[in-house]
Amino acid sequence: MRRVALWITYEGTHFSGYQVQPNSRTVQEEIEKALSKIHKGETIRIYSSGRTDSGVHARGQVVHFDSSLDIPLIRWPKAINACLPSDIRIIEANHVSETFHSRYHAIKKEYHYRVLVRQEGDVFRRNLTHHITYPVNIERMQKAAEHLIGKHDFSSFCAANTDVKDKVRTLFDISIVLDQDEIVFKLVGNGFLYNMVRIIVGTLLEIGALKREVDELLLILQAMDRTVAGKTAPGNGLYLWRVSYENSIFSERY
Amino acid sequence: MRRVALWITYEGTHFSGYQVQPNSRTVQEEIEKALSKIHKGETIRIYSSGRTDSGVHARGQVVHFDSSLDIPLIRWPKAINACLPSDIRIIEANHVSETFHSRYHAIKKEYHYRVLVRQEGDVFRRNLTHHITYPVNIERMQKAAEHLIGKHDFSSFCAANTDVKDKVRTLFDISIVLDQDEIVFKLVGNGFLYNMVRIIVGTLLEIGALKREVDELLLILQAMDRTVAGKTAPGNGLYLWRVSYENSIFSERY
Repeated sequence: MRRVALWITYEGTHFSGYQVQPNSRTVQEEIEKALSKIHKGETIRIYSSGRTDSGVHARGQVVHFDSSLDIPLIRWPKAINACLPSDIRIIEANHVSETFHSRYHAIKKEYHYRVLVRQEGDVFRRNLTHHITYPVNIERMQKAAEHLIGKHDFSSFCAANTDVKDKVRTLFDISIVLDQDEIVFKLVGNGFLYNMVRIIVGTLLEIGALKREVDELLLILQAMDRTVAGKTAPGNGLYLWRVSYENSIFSERY
Repeated sequence: MRRVALWITYEGTHFSGYQVQPNSRTVQEEIEKALSKIHKGETIRIYSSGRTDSGVHARGQVVHFDSSLDIPLIRWPKAINACLPSDIRIIEANHVSETFHSRYHAIKKEYHYRVLVRQEGDVFRRNLTHHITYPVNIERMQKAAEHLIGKHDFSSFCAANTDVKDKVRTLFDISIVLDQDEIVFKLVGNGFLYNMVRIIVGTLLEIGALKREVDELLLILQAMDRTVAGKTAPGNGLYLWRVSYENSIFSERY
């Protein structure tokens, strides 16, 4: 038995999210079906670094599973990809220790959020960006975002429907950069609450659009109350970009 | 009655091409339905600069139609977009003379073709690029492409199933550039035959992959016989990029 970790990418558009649920097309189910095929019908359970919601994309999701097959590492991606639909691709595989867990051992996560700012929608990016037509001031958003960096109780930026008790997380960095007609938010933290990135981005966009004051973000954070923060930005702009572990698992381009 | 020209973009993935055909989702039908709604049920016929095939995209398609409505130009795109599915977007509208024809008056057309060169497919570009995993030599393709520039009978690069008699066209320019992990072919000509860009790209890729000699392209051109050229490259890498007229119709960014 060997434990294998996979670097996975998917376009979330046509999935009801990552996690298996009845009568829905999910990323987990597609991968488990593919692995089962390779293992001649054996049920293979995969464990991910975390779920992603409907419409949310992954550039660097990590999952692990145990296999009795003696397939050389370099062959794993091709073998699995051959059994997967084209909106999921395995980029790399690597062996990890038998105690490795893609979720519990993650020490850092990076999310990106892409906002397309222009009058007309872009047909080629309609599922890959959140499209807005109003102007936003990036400097205001950058200033406001500074309030969030560090270790805080992020209750105000967590969807109400969650069982998680401890809402303290550490945000290492937020950068907000203009890339042609897109504003890209990059958030790095030790972990993220349910909808946390989307509520942060939604609130920052309201500050960028002059609907809220820059320093309001501090008050929102201190309130520890979801109802005082801004709207949850839509899922289609969000990317699980990278998950980091004590020892890096994949090649440098990960 | 005013004649209106529209700058149209669409992602071709979920269309059976541009032209109306029974029991198929087509770009033309979607736009005509939208215009009919705006004209209170009146049938509005649109005329395009040319068809595009199933899976082929448009960044700069041009169509025209006649309208009795007195809608200010700036309002047209919004009004039509509100009635269109999200994989078609109108970028601009402008008034043109009542004798203008988007097809017959086109003097220059530009097509782009995007080839993704890497081992793994990219989920975010799977419908937007033609993905190859073998290496190709760009310089060889550039040298070969030079044979095509100018006024030639392009019979060898025209799909067999066409009614067009005169297969002489003028190719003004072909450029082939590397853009990170993509090779982008840009072709500019006074007009293109059915599948011409895709057969040229397919043949150039064979030359780039060392399956054919560089100077073979001259022999293929002279043969005036479709069977001697290379494979037709798939539709999903192709973009109708721009259509030019004696007088430019749209803003500078067109």
